[in-house]
Amino acid sequence: MDTSALRLRTATADDWPAIWPVWQRVVETGETIAWDPATDEPTARSLWMARPPAAVFVAERADRAGRTQVVGTAKLVPDQPGLGDHVANASFMVHPDAAGAGIGRRMGEHVLDEARRRGYRAMRFNAVVETNDRAIALWTSLGFAIVGTVPEAFRHPRHGLVGLHVMHRTL
Amino acid sequence: MDTSALRLRTATADDWPAIWPVWQRVVETGETIAWDPATDEPTARSLWMARPPAAVFVAERADRAGRTQVVGTAKLVPDQPGLGDHVANASFMVHPDAAGAGIGRRMGEHVLDEARRRGYRAMRFNAVVETNDRAIALWTSLGFAIVGTVPEAFRHPRHGLVGLHVMHRTL
Repeated sequence: MDTSALRLRTATADDWPAIWPVWQRVVETGETIAWDPATDEPTARSLWMARPPAAVFVAERADRAGRTQVVGTAKLVPDQPGLGDHVANASFMVHPDAAGAGIGRRMGEHVLDEARRRGYRAMRFNAVVETNDRAIALWTSLGFAIVGTVPEAFRHPRHGLVGLHVMHRTL
Repeated sequence: MDTSALRLRTATADDWPAIWPVWQRVVETGETIAWDPATDEPTARSLWMARPPAAVFVAERADRAGRTQVVGTAKLVPDQPGLGDHVANASFMVHPDAAGAGIGRRMGEHVLDEARRRGYRAMRFNAVVETNDRAIALWTSLGFAIVGTVPEAFRHPRHGLVGLHVMHRTL
């Protein structure tokens, strides 16, 4: 699908009101990310809009009325502090109404570029839900490999206890 | 070695001054845990003495003059929030001068018991330094398995870039 009209950029604190509907819709499904599906807005803000070295990104495009709308968001952080801070970790959310349009891929590519630019040497995920086929296919196609799977580490609302993949790629 | 005189208990904020010398000595070696070896005391305190559901433990024993001395500390936290908070994560530190005395094993057993008591169903480590033979042997003997290894994820002061093991066991 055409994602040429999609704009990827670093977010500021002012973007939070436009990020929150995406965050809420993704987290409330409880299928792709561990945060409590009932997380309230102030808590979500403190979880997502972290200070440097964390960085938050938004994917935005015009809606039918021509208004700019945030349809996805990503967060880039060091996976470990200090002696492990050369490996990044990232989280991604795409509004369900915009799923399947290539937004996740565009965000993934953008955040990999940003991670390289910021000096990270690799990227690691710790909690890729093993039933999230779309995410696993995306990250595999972007060069990630499954390092291992922590069994029964995620309480899926439909599938019960499922594993969390650790995934990794060098940059 | 005899660890019968060792006392394991949950720490309170008042224990920090006695924990800090252990924390500093372990972290400044840069061989077993990722925090910046030069971490200052207030930062260390905020990193270690976290609020519930995190719990901190101390291992203490009498020194030659009969004074109670903290020789080890551990921290127990949920590995993931929300839908992943049934899996614990833990960190352990033993003062180098007290190494080899079985303190790590006693602390490990204690924290596994505490994790069970608090309702966790498994324990996961994300950053076991692959050159830390003593820790790997200890955790393996306590029922942990290596799930996978993130390559070159830790800057070791003597060995250069080494991997970080993800380890796991059910409770």
